[in-house]
Amino acid sequence: MAETNETRQGTNLDPWFNHYASRSAGLSASEVRALFAVASRPEVVSLAGGMPYVRALPESLVNGALEKVMSENGPMAMQYGSGQGVPALREQILEIMALEGISASVDDVVVTTGSQQALDLVTKLFIDPGDVILAEAPSYVGAIGVFRSYQADVVHVLMDENGLIPEKLREAIADVKASGRTIKFLYTIPNFHNPAGVTLSAERRPEILEICQSNGILILEDNPYGLLSFEEDVPPAIRSLNEDGVIYLGSFSKTLAPGFRVGWALAPHAIREKLVLAAEAAILCPSSFSQMVISEYLSQADWKGQIETFRGVYKERRDAMLEALEEHLPDLSWNVPNGGFYIWCSLPENLDSKAMLPRAVTELVAYTPGTAFFADGGGRQNIRLSFCYPTPENIKIGIRRLATVIRGELDLLADFAGTGSLTAAAGDDNVIAPPPDLS
Amino acid sequence: MAETNETRQGTNLDPWFNHYASRSAGLSASEVRALFAVASRPEVVSLAGGMPYVRALPESLVNGALEKVMSENGPMAMQYGSGQGVPALREQILEIMALEGISASVDDVVVTTGSQQALDLVTKLFIDPGDVILAEAPSYVGAIGVFRSYQADVVHVLMDENGLIPEKLREAIADVKASGRTIKFLYTIPNFHNPAGVTLSAERRPEILEICQSNGILILEDNPYGLLSFEEDVPPAIRSLNEDGVIYLGSFSKTLAPGFRVGWALAPHAIREKLVLAAEAAILCPSSFSQMVISEYLSQADWKGQIETFRGVYKERRDAMLEALEEHLPDLSWNVPNGGFYIWCSLPENLDSKAMLPRAVTELVAYTPGTAFFADGGGRQNIRLSFCYPTPENIKIGIRRLATVIRGELDLLADFAGTGSLTAAAGDDNVIAPPPDLS
Repeated sequence: MAETNETRQGTNLDPWFNHYASRSAGLSASEVRALFAVASRPEVVSLAGGMPYVRALPESLVNGALEKVMSENGPMAMQYGSGQGVPALREQILEIMALEGISASVDDVVVTTGSQQALDLVTKLFIDPGDVILAEAPSYVGAIGVFRSYQADVVHVLMDENGLIPEKLREAIADVKASGRTIKFLYTIPNFHNPAGVTLSAERRPEILEICQSNGILILEDNPYGLLSFEEDVPPAIRSLNEDGVIYLGSFSKTLAPGFRVGWALAPHAIREKLVLAAEAAILCPSSFSQMVISEYLSQADWKGQIETFRGVYKERRDAMLEALEEHLPDLSWNVPNGGFYIWCSLPENLDSKAMLPRAVTELVAYTPGTAFFADGGGRQNIRLSFCYPTPENIKIGIRRLATVIRGELDLLADFAGTGSLTAAAGDDNVIAPPPDLS
Repeated sequence: MAETNETRQGTNLDPWFNHYASRSAGLSASEVRALFAVASRPEVVSLAGGMPYVRALPESLVNGALEKVMSENGPMAMQYGSGQGVPALREQILEIMALEGISASVDDVVVTTGSQQALDLVTKLFIDPGDVILAEAPSYVGAIGVFRSYQADVVHVLMDENGLIPEKLREAIADVKASGRTIKFLYTIPNFHNPAGVTLSAERRPEILEICQSNGILILEDNPYGLLSFEEDVPPAIRSLNEDGVIYLGSFSKTLAPGFRVGWALAPHAIREKLVLAAEAAILCPSSFSQMVISEYLSQADWKGQIETFRGVYKERRDAMLEALEEHLPDLSWNVPNGGFYIWCSLPENLDSKAMLPRAVTELVAYTPGTAFFADGGGRQNIRLSFCYPTPENIKIGIRRLATVIRGELDLLADFAGTGSLTAAAGDDNVIAPPPDLS
């Protein structure tokens, strides 16, 4: 066909260039993704990724579960299972959610391939092109990626040290409505936010819920880190305050291990039915094997004790990072997270986190530039530092290297002062106001 | 908000009724899904599902792989991995595909959560609402489900005992083009088709490819059953004839076990890049644990010998089903599959496979009505019988029960002859001509 041949000549690299769906334009490589390759080099101290420290999980606990599953239920573990997930595991998930005040029916739990898949399915179910999703500023890079892949418009809402600011949420809703667009849901990470590290205060939770309820906006509450607190427990989940207006997402990736790819959604009943159909269309069913191993682990191991172990590991690493920041980078500002994996830092004025990254890698330290966590070009003056994976010793080395990089950039900036060249580079595209200082 | 309250009154069961995306209308419970609940009752002989007989896989083979992975690579198996899949497994997948004549680069293999996820991702990547996908008549129920969930129009193309009919493909393409619609790809299962049981002949493969190439149509070649032949090997894959115009899907679900949920796509290079991004948006990465266990199994076990074992099991069951059909249901017509899991039967005139199903369940036998395999209401006079899971003895019992059901329906039909009621029921919606007799 002549048309096709002409098309091919026009796009040498991909003969199918004109065949993709409109939504495929939203698929682009995230900055975090590009970093994975760099961070895997052993000489680089990576403060970039969000990998849990699975070496703190004794292998005997997993081996015990594996042996029991294979000796007692091998054929079932090898077989297709329910699209909604293994019933015994869904019962145990109720016990886990009860720790954050949630009461629910096992019928409304859907097991997914990591909670990332739940994000994907909920977005598929609700988003027509151009629909608005409200999300914190900054927000989880993987959520922004999914939302874009269904052509959603992400509108950011500012946070402070107590999480999402109710007044800013009201303003955002009013602005979007005034523009004639439809808001489908609020995406929020209330506990030990990724990347901002903050937790939504107990006082604000009913207020955020009320604002969404009165505006007919569904809440998508994503809670992978809630059980990883370093001091007191987190406030009750938003889902514990309301059943019909909240889809809650949970995960075993941070409290056990991500390699099994098991997470879940708890959804209002009517939504849950559609969610199961969407899950079946996407993968038929989640892995029976993974689910049964986790279920057996929860039955036979002291899983709450294991979470205590993880808390201790991550608290020690957070402290190491804070200490190193105070020693080597007193000019930066940062928050002090009470749990989770991340510290969110503001760089000195006129530094550009994205432009600085290649230099950091040269100095053998990696971080995630703040721009990865904004759908609108924000975050150039921020970086996310992860303390979850490297040892305390390596965290200190990493922060020391980062200080060298930042000093070098500031020296360069001073050298060029007056020429305007570096500041122009930092300000050359659509930079919104950075999020409030979270320190 | 007043609007929301009114909306809620109008849709008591689901307050979010008006919030779903347009595409969610395409999500409906498949007939196969409803059958899973029925088929799991032990007194029912299920000839309905497509569950492989995993008991034919010695557990020692899987245990050996599990032990090696945990003792040598536990922390890596527990961790996040590459979005594209574990490199060692992708290398082994090349060896498997080489058995069907495929030569490819490890860079172009993407591991997915079962090949169902590959179907989902390819559809997400290419289909805008209203785009046309060509598919055999009948076609895989799970593919039709995915295609609908992205608002594709499925146009069926007739088969005969040598698979897809080239002339019918040309006609379908001309018809769709005349209607002004866009064809995005041809979805085909060339070997031991689900549900039709037939294999695309070696002679037709280059012809089908040429028709698609000259019309600028991508081919999605889905091959879960190709290695499960009972007599001679299948012809070389369509992908072996062309690299840029074919996305090939493979799976470990039928040659090893579905409980790990591991399949793959081999895509033209430019498409592969987008496929990885879509996969990362959907699930971040496939299960490291599942992939490493399968990789270790392929390294240490006689996996080709195990496939021989499966072939023997399924051949014996096919033979048992054919023998029972000849003995108890000589009035039906059916094909004789040379591999795979399924026999496709045509019922005597005026019988309705969907309407007959409740009666069959009462007689403790289940099958899949032909309607599940058509996007357009066809298949009422067909049933799919699976011989993969039940023992030969149970297959014989099941076919005997099915014969009782069919005799009962025919008696009823004779009793009501002249009143027109039963035939009207059978013909009351959009039944297209049944596919050609495949016997």
